[in-house]
Amino acid sequence: MTLATEHWVLTLACEDRPGIVHAISGAIVAANGNITESHQYTSLDTGRFFMRLQIESAISRDAFEEAIKPIAAKYSMQWTLDTVGRKMKTLVLVSKAAHCINDMLFRQRSGQLPIEIETVFGNHAELAPLAEFYGLAFETHTIKSEGDKRAFEQMLRTYIKSAGIELIVLARFMQVLSPEFCDEFAGKIINIHHSFLPGFKGANPYAQAHARGVKLIGATAHFVTSDLDEGPIIEQNVVRVEHSASKNRLVSIGQDVESKTLTQAVLWFAEHRILLDGERTVIFS
Amino acid sequence: MTLATEHWVLTLACEDRPGIVHAISGAIVAANGNITESHQYTSLDTGRFFMRLQIESAISRDAFEEAIKPIAAKYSMQWTLDTVGRKMKTLVLVSKAAHCINDMLFRQRSGQLPIEIETVFGNHAELAPLAEFYGLAFETHTIKSEGDKRAFEQMLRTYIKSAGIELIVLARFMQVLSPEFCDEFAGKIINIHHSFLPGFKGANPYAQAHARGVKLIGATAHFVTSDLDEGPIIEQNVVRVEHSASKNRLVSIGQDVESKTLTQAVLWFAEHRILLDGERTVIFS
Amino acid sequence: MTLATEHWVLTLACEDRPGIVHAISGAIVAANGNITESHQYTSLDTGRFFMRLQIESAISRDAFEEAIKPIAAKYSMQWTLDTVGRKMKTLVLVSKAAHCINDMLFRQRSGQLPIEIETVFGNHAELAPLAEFYGLAFETHTIKSEGDKRAFEQMLRTYIKSAGIELIVLARFMQVLSPEFCDEFAGKIINIHHSFLPGFKGANPYAQAHARGVKLIGATAHFVTSDLDEGPIIEQNVVRVEHSASKNRLVSIGQDVESKTLTQAVLWFAEHRILLDGERTVIFS
Amino acid sequence: MTLATEHWVLTLACEDRPGIVHAISGAIVAANGNITESHQYTSLDTGRFFMRLQIESAISRDAFEEAIKPIAAKYSMQWTLDTVGRKMKTLVLVSKAAHCINDMLFRQRSGQLPIEIETVFGNHAELAPLAEFYGLAFETHTIKSEGDKRAFEQMLRTYIKSAGIELIVLARFMQVLSPEFCDEFAGKIINIHHSFLPGFKGANPYAQAHARGVKLIGATAHFVTSDLDEGPIIEQNVVRVEHSASKNRLVSIGQDVESKTLTQAVLWFAEHRILLDGERTVIFS
Repeated sequence: MTLATEHWVLTLACEDRPGIVHAISGAIVAANGNITESHQYTSLDTGRFFMRLQIESAISRDAFEEAIKPIAAKYSMQWTLDTVGRKMKTLVLVSKAAHCINDMLFRQRSGQLPIEIETVFGNHAELAPLAEFYGLAFETHTIKSEGDKRAFEQMLRTYIKSAGIELIVLARFMQVLSPEFCDEFAGKIINIHHSFLPGFKGANPYAQAHARGVKLIGATAHFVTSDLDEGPIIEQNVVRVEHSASKNRLVSIGQDVESKTLTQAVLWFAEHRILLDGERTVIFS
Repeated sequence: MTLATEHWVLTLACEDRPGIVHAISGAIVAANGNITESHQYTSLDTGRFFMRLQIESAISRDAFEEAIKPIAAKYSMQWTLDTVGRKMKTLVLVSKAAHCINDMLFRQRSGQLPIEIETVFGNHAELAPLAEFYGLAFETHTIKSEGDKRAFEQMLRTYIKSAGIELIVLARFMQVLSPEFCDEFAGKIINIHHSFLPGFKGANPYAQAHARGVKLIGATAHFVTSDLDEGPIIEQNVVRVEHSASKNRLVSIGQDVESKTLTQAVLWFAEHRILLDGERTVIFS
Repeated sequence: MTLATEHWVLTLACEDRPGIVHAISGAIVAANGNITESHQYTSLDTGRFFMRLQIESAISRDAFEEAIKPIAAKYSMQWTLDTVGRKMKTLVLVSKAAHCINDMLFRQRSGQLPIEIETVFGNHAELAPLAEFYGLAFETHTIKSEGDKRAFEQMLRTYIKSAGIELIVLARFMQVLSPEFCDEFAGKIINIHHSFLPGFKGANPYAQAHARGVKLIGATAHFVTSDLDEGPIIEQNVVRVEHSASKNRLVSIGQDVESKTLTQAVLWFAEHRILLDGERTVIFS
Repeated sequence: MTLATEHWVLTLACEDRPGIVHAISGAIVAANGNITESHQYTSLDTGRFFMRLQIESAISRDAFEEAIKPIAAKYSMQWTLDTVGRKMKTLVLVSKAAHCINDMLFRQRSGQLPIEIETVFGNHAELAPLAEFYGLAFETHTIKSEGDKRAFEQMLRTYIKSAGIELIVLARFMQVLSPEFCDEFAGKIINIHHSFLPGFKGANPYAQAHARGVKLIGATAHFVTSDLDEGPIIEQNVVRVEHSASKNRLVSIGQDVESKTLTQAVLWFAEHRILLDGERTVIFS
């Protein structure tokens, strides 16, 4: 019996040493695999080696994992193996602003964003109809106290476990998650901050940007850590603004760049294109 | 005797009130003038009205000024009148980095930048040959102590007065001018900061940007005030960087965006396109 | 009785002559009006003068029109007077691709796009649910023959008249309208072409772009004329593509830039920011 | 005796087959080499595999070539081996416009562009002082007839051979080279065309762009072939223009984007980052 050809995506990170590429490519040759996409990078800051490969091969997952394991052990690698295009199970948190989730859901439906969302959670009910149009459940969890937040996060923990959530997206979710929650899901929570970080951290970045008179406004998609607005940056974009743009106009102008930036970050995550190099991200795009 | 047609540029700023445009356009009609370019803006933040006009007219400067004076008095206007294309007398301060002044001098010579430079002052001698290639004098003033700086600034004051300097450009001048000097020439000193302010103020912004892992680096041209890196922003640009770019590579990549941003700001200043609205700039480009 | 203050938008175009601004500003002063936004431009190619003003005034429309009429007559002006923010009655034609209309409808609902759509017409039924989510009627008109097209256009004419349609948007409508229809509604039909015109006219521009190996792909919003892909250009944007992007990937990448470009053009039209200078557009943005 | 560590750059192209990466990485392991940069791409259009590697190794050139030769033979590879940072011998042809060569020479001197220029050839004398400032010889060859051009090209052939020229840059050289010359040096001549190809081929692209009313103008760096303006595109950039920009203003605005685009293409060529995939380029940047 012949297995159908599968399209694999393999990522790995380890201390840089000679021979890694040859060892990995040897495993791929042994699997009759063909490399269709390849990125690698060695960080001069940390001395770590990062690699992402896409491989066509008729090998089974078990056999492929067995082939990689000894190499991974030899080089003390962190590694992941997945199939290209598999939809990543994603949890989305929202408040009232629709633009980010609208963009994500539109692209997911049109086949451009390989994520799978079952339920959207909001601390307001406004976005329920949008979620429902896209066939998703929507749950409203009002958060008015620290107790509410603890209960909300506890509910999320249960849901994340039962639903097998791999990625948590804060699509303009206007609540600060607890440090414990952030630490627990480190490297799995992506937030969109509506400024060009590190400029204008904290609340009301557009008001800050207007007051400072900047000529470009931006948005930053980053991993969430317990240190607010300080997690590793995944993607940033900016857009030009005129002196005549009011604070409210900045909010409106900024929506595009927020949506685009967040969706890009989610796409890269879902495609295993983001690796962590200390406080910095390696993007294999 | 008929005067030749002159191309005038008029700027004005005052508290916003009805009738300003009609009053000014009346003076222009009386001068048989034709408006060739017009910008106006009312700031919702400060309630001030800003206007920049280009006018073709055969009126003499004295007559034009006499026509505008009563209107300016009635509305308590700040105003300037100049001829389009007149070269603004400019002082340039440099250290060792050549990219910004090279761009400015190239454009000045090719007729794209209406400024007139007689002498370039550096606290190092490296850029003397470049200045000389463009036919400019170059003076080296080494600054190693507070006393040196005071003497340097005193020399500049004398030069600014005698040469009729209207604009001072810090083209990667790696010295901090004294608060007194900054205050004395407020609104006339343009600096290029090699980051996207307000991110990465102070020294080594590219090292800061690398450490923070930003995905875009930028440059900011701003008026110098006694509050370091806090003066009104004139222009900003950014350029995308990859995770693989080292600190030194950021420095190299950033040079383009620095040159472009500074030259743009100088051009706008020379063309009377920058007006001040409190801490913000109005750019009539 | 005092009228409430209204926010007016006035556009005008005529042969350039001295005194126009003064005449118009005189009418505004007489109306106790305050100019809140002003743009003007004189075309060196055609000698025509263009102006767009926003004016706050408590004058009635009739009185304002009466004040402008003699000036318009004196200078042989084409002019329009509207209220700022009035929703322009818009007809949208679609085929199967959802991205452009999705972007328009999302922005319309969120208050960023002052247009009013009652019915969306498609030559396929795919986008009916999307229209319905946004509370719009959707009519499917299959077009398989020249006769179908004639009947479709006849139906449109009737609808345009009865519904008072001011703007027709081809949001990736994959049918060529007849020259007669294009001429009849000249200056009122906006199309999005999925290339950076004049490169890659005609069918399959992304396939052409891929074959030619361009490094940027683009989109062009333009007025439709009977000369296919040759009407006045309103807006263009581009996005960078890598050698590795397949034809299908170009199609996907291009969707963003198409949506953004079309929505921008529609916004400018709805705000009376587009004036025609022969084959070129003047954009007062 | 130990050889000092050398930094190598290896490029290769061949029909895609499994095992190439493993074979090459085996040769690198055998050379005690460490891969510091790696790019690969398989063209779905032509079925060809492309690779560019940077490798640190203390191996001698002869030994490295011997290691690669059997692999190259097995897979019928086209390949090059060079040392990173070696300055490529470059011939520059100019006419009167200074902006492109000024940018190249500035970057070459400041260490950003690894090329070596001995002599600049112009069909006008205007740029001689600029070349001399940068310490280069300058030869003026007036071309007024077909005979002049034949003699010029013959002189170039001799110079190219004697000087070991590897790259020919047309830095706004306003002469069309003969088809024979273009064919003889195919893949080695880079031109900057002052439009966003394929829009506005031929003469006066800015006049064409102005007449068509485009909203972005651009520049295209491409390999020269005997088919005018049709050679493989290396890099393109655009810049936004307003309706108010005259033809002359487009020329001025376009200079930046021309310089930047040409210098980028030259840099990529000098770093062996451009590979040819039929009529398209693969850029490993």
